[in-house]
Amino acid sequence: MTHFPKTELNSVHRLPQRGQYDKETIYRIVDEAKICHVGFAVDGQPFVIPTIHARDGDMLYLHGAKASRLLKHIAEGHPVCVTITLLDGLVLARSVFHSSMNYRSVVLFGCGTVVEEDAAKLHALEVLTNQLVAGRWEDARKPTPKELNATTVVALSLESASAKIRVGPPSDDEEDYALPIWAGVLPLRQQALELAPDPRLNAGIPAPEYLSDLVSGD
Amino acid sequence: MTHFPKTELNSVHRLPQRGQYDKETIYRIVDEAKICHVGFAVDGQPFVIPTIHARDGDMLYLHGAKASRLLKHIAEGHPVCVTITLLDGLVLARSVFHSSMNYRSVVLFGCGTVVEEDAAKLHALEVLTNQLVAGRWEDARKPTPKELNATTVVALSLESASAKIRVGPPSDDEEDYALPIWAGVLPLRQQALELAPDPRLNAGIPAPEYLSDLVSGD
Repeated sequence: MTHFPKTELNSVHRLPQRGQYDKETIYRIVDEAKICHVGFAVDGQPFVIPTIHARDGDMLYLHGAKASRLLKHIAEGHPVCVTITLLDGLVLARSVFHSSMNYRSVVLFGCGTVVEEDAAKLHALEVLTNQLVAGRWEDARKPTPKELNATTVVALSLESASAKIRVGPPSDDEEDYALPIWAGVLPLRQQALELAPDPRLNAGIPAPEYLSDLVSGD
Repeated sequence: MTHFPKTELNSVHRLPQRGQYDKETIYRIVDEAKICHVGFAVDGQPFVIPTIHARDGDMLYLHGAKASRLLKHIAEGHPVCVTITLLDGLVLARSVFHSSMNYRSVVLFGCGTVVEEDAAKLHALEVLTNQLVAGRWEDARKPTPKELNATTVVALSLESASAKIRVGPPSDDEEDYALPIWAGVLPLRQQALELAPDPRLNAGIPAPEYLSDLVSGD
């Protein structure tokens, strides 16, 4: 399956021309983002929690402390909605009405199961750590059995999803193009600044390349 | 009231030392962010939608097309949860277990009402437009009565909220500081790139200062 079936659950209702359902598009956004927002409901009261995520095929891993309310809720089999948004720019149309943003967002739906087995849990933590920074898992001190036991990992099976994307210049009403108002896009991106070594870092430990390569050039 | 009362709804359960409840801290995060994630539940199924927001005192405005499912749901009086996250850095601890992120997030709870009256609606759109870019409202072509009619604005009364903030270097287990592993923070920030004028922009319209001032210097 290369596309998620378009159903009532995942259909993009507003501005449906911005909706996309193919896995390649959706997963590229999931993989680029460092955080997601997970929504769940308890007795009709919604909660939205930011957390880190990592994709492994058609699974999405989330993790946290054993006591996490979110993870307990997922473990109980309740449906969740995971939304990921990459903000690419502010769209300044001539009219307030057509002002907008350029963005790439995905909405994922699924139910989760707890990853119980140690090897599977370690694998998930490896995927999560390398999502934070590719290459970090190899370098870092791996979880001890006690730490592994204190961590809950859930795997969400991605059953339904859609992406919504806006790119390009503003789209004004035809008669507004004559107005003497500046219009265009203020592009935004997430920039990595100079590495800040731990004040307690021992002398003679250089920053690894997989980190220094992420720092934006001038 | 300068603090939100700490209740079951808004209490930070995990790592409670990171929780903050004062309005000044919470509202500074709300005001800095360009987007929020709104969670709502329909028959137990959660949805999380990214959208733009703007604060006006203890109210949060959201807006969209009249047909928006989210806004209709809010208009019906259902509770929503609005979460805003600013990502400030990746925290590379020596151990996988203590790896983390630096962030400032807020979780807001409230119910909404539709802003019906034209003057109040225009005021809300002014606040929303200036949240996109401060100063834009004055410059842009204001909504026509038809556009105003096609737009729904809801005002959420912020009844409960909390912030959760992590700053600073990694916090490793004491015995791990001796390990020959680089540790520190990769700071992240949202950067504005060079303005991209609309290809259809008429000649002789310079970029206004309130926009060019936002472009990050080298």
